[in-house]
Amino acid sequence: MPWMRHALLLARTAVGRASPNPAVGAVLVKDGQVIGRGATQAPGGPHAEIVALRAAGEAPRGSTLYVTLEPCCHHGRTPPCTEAIIAAGVAEVHIATLDPNPAVSGRGRAALEAAGIRTVLGEGEEAARALIAYHRKYITTGLPLVIAKFAASLDGKVATRTGHSQWITGPAAREYAHRVRARVDAILVGVNTVLADDPQLTARPGGRLVRRQPLRVVVDSRGRTPPQAQVLRGPGQALVAVTAQAPPDRLRALREAGAEVVVLPSDGDKVDVLALLRELGRREQASVLVEGGSTLLGSLFDRGLVDQVLAFFALLLIGGRDALPAVGGLGAATLAEALRLERVQVRRLGNDLLVSGWAAER
Amino acid sequence: MPWMRHALLLARTAVGRASPNPAVGAVLVKDGQVIGRGATQAPGGPHAEIVALRAAGEAPRGSTLYVTLEPCCHHGRTPPCTEAIIAAGVAEVHIATLDPNPAVSGRGRAALEAAGIRTVLGEGEEAARALIAYHRKYITTGLPLVIAKFAASLDGKVATRTGHSQWITGPAAREYAHRVRARVDAILVGVNTVLADDPQLTARPGGRLVRRQPLRVVVDSRGRTPPQAQVLRGPGQALVAVTAQAPPDRLRALREAGAEVVVLPSDGDKVDVLALLRELGRREQASVLVEGGSTLLGSLFDRGLVDQVLAFFALLLIGGRDALPAVGGLGAATLAEALRLERVQVRRLGNDLLVSGWAAER
Repeated sequence: MPWMRHALLLARTAVGRASPNPAVGAVLVKDGQVIGRGATQAPGGPHAEIVALRAAGEAPRGSTLYVTLEPCCHHGRTPPCTEAIIAAGVAEVHIATLDPNPAVSGRGRAALEAAGIRTVLGEGEEAARALIAYHRKYITTGLPLVIAKFAASLDGKVATRTGHSQWITGPAAREYAHRVRARVDAILVGVNTVLADDPQLTARPGGRLVRRQPLRVVVDSRGRTPPQAQVLRGPGQALVAVTAQAPPDRLRALREAGAEVVVLPSDGDKVDVLALLRELGRREQASVLVEGGSTLLGSLFDRGLVDQVLAFFALLLIGGRDALPAVGGLGAATLAEALRLERVQVRRLGNDLLVSGWAAER
Repeated sequence: MPWMRHALLLARTAVGRASPNPAVGAVLVKDGQVIGRGATQAPGGPHAEIVALRAAGEAPRGSTLYVTLEPCCHHGRTPPCTEAIIAAGVAEVHIATLDPNPAVSGRGRAALEAAGIRTVLGEGEEAARALIAYHRKYITTGLPLVIAKFAASLDGKVATRTGHSQWITGPAAREYAHRVRARVDAILVGVNTVLADDPQLTARPGGRLVRRQPLRVVVDSRGRTPPQAQVLRGPGQALVAVTAQAPPDRLRALREAGAEVVVLPSDGDKVDVLALLRELGRREQASVLVEGGSTLLGSLFDRGLVDQVLAFFALLLIGGRDALPAVGGLGAATLAEALRLERVQVRRLGNDLLVSGWAAER
């Protein structure tokens, strides 16, 4: 397991960069020594196994490869990894998890076995699956992985009755959120959040802008985003998702401000969030972090479109029948309809609490 | 510290039974051996130190006493413990914390020192103070300690939009709540909770009714509690707190059903919760567990009357702009006005989460 843990750490470094491809790590071991390591490069670049093999030069013959995802056996943007592994004379391959693409799952492993290479499956599988959850969602549905994030008081309020909301959680929680932003393809917010807080929505872990900024998406049926909003300015791209209700002059102003505008079908008087996710999938956005507000999160929960939840809690109580709840919308009618989380983790972040989990299958 | 920890465990067994007196534990140690142990008995019965001394018989001379609260030096319902400790020839007394009553705090320790007994203060102080928090509140203010409890979804809802609420949390959380009920003097609920859920509000840890049942209090300005409600039936006493708005025939029916009815001042159209707590203090109720609903908790938070919070969370999301929030009322206007918790503990209870903490001084 230590070698696979090493490979998982490498895979973690590739999340974001690799998307929509899976983030994979590989470690090549011979005589108890690492002779090569690699992680997935940006799309079009070499896969993790190839990086590790190249690093090892002539030495791979008889070595053991630890790789967090089943090596590919098909010609995609790069040649099949299985061929390179076989050609290098690798003796044994440990695979954390099989390819989530049903069209190829198990075939890479079979190709290795057919060439006389011993394979071992399942070490670190849960961690490996979690790392490529965005790729699994995207490759199997064409939709991005949807991560719902909110920062609330312990009683679930994201603002006081007067709208006061900055900052509910502290610096450690905000830093964590910036690191999440750096790993996702896109960030979604509702227009009310833009109007209330005028956020930048850039990824600034450690206070520094990362090079690859997520696409920032404002869900804004009537095109009310102010052209001077910070979210429309660089670095990174901004997309405003509107419906046919939005007046053309507002859309023109948004485009002049540098934003791309996309007109989507409506669901009642709002942007149809499933149509929006489909559009983002078409743009190869494999993961989106939804940062609120209450209305947008409500729409996504109501439609059953949330895959993962990051709930940050400040250890305080705001109260108020009319204070804004973290998740608005219509809501579940019965407890059986509520979204249950599994694989839940709880951690302290400074004075705050982070509860994260994955939507249970329904 | 191990001896004081032993004394703290003994003190814990006395919470509830001792109220409104402090729950105290005492361990008498000689030559590295426990020669006596004790915990506070019911009001009028002996204090922990006396129980420990009696258990030790003739042996206490030259021993060390570990006691979780400063021994009393005044004649109350029982003679002063300091005199008994001095008479027994105890050589050294370790005290976790001083008496919270400003009129006597430090005097017991001074009496022991004046008699030539060495004293050591402060081992296990935080735990000892937490155990007698109810006594401190009661003795210094005449009001009970107010413990606000709710069981909510991760997004702070205590019911779905259709009112579905049973059971949000699971058996482990409910068992924990029963153990808390067994330790408090009274349980408060708003009448809407009685109308919606018809709870018994008895303490049933392990499924068995404890002998000493808490007083059950329904906060019910207009006397709408149904006379057949389970909360009015035994075991234990029931009190319905109403205002002058409540029609006399309803009050008569409630009294005939076995409840005591108390008419209190109103605050708007509701029972004045501070007047209610004063009334409970007059009845020597030193701790109350408030189990909701949203409106009653809101009133208590709005008035700044909450001392401790027990927030049980099911790992699910209900959502809904109009679903019932855990804490209703008016709510804080700004984040600075929100109630901050300190000494926060987080634990898993089955599939649920318990976040507990104490109101920070304001």
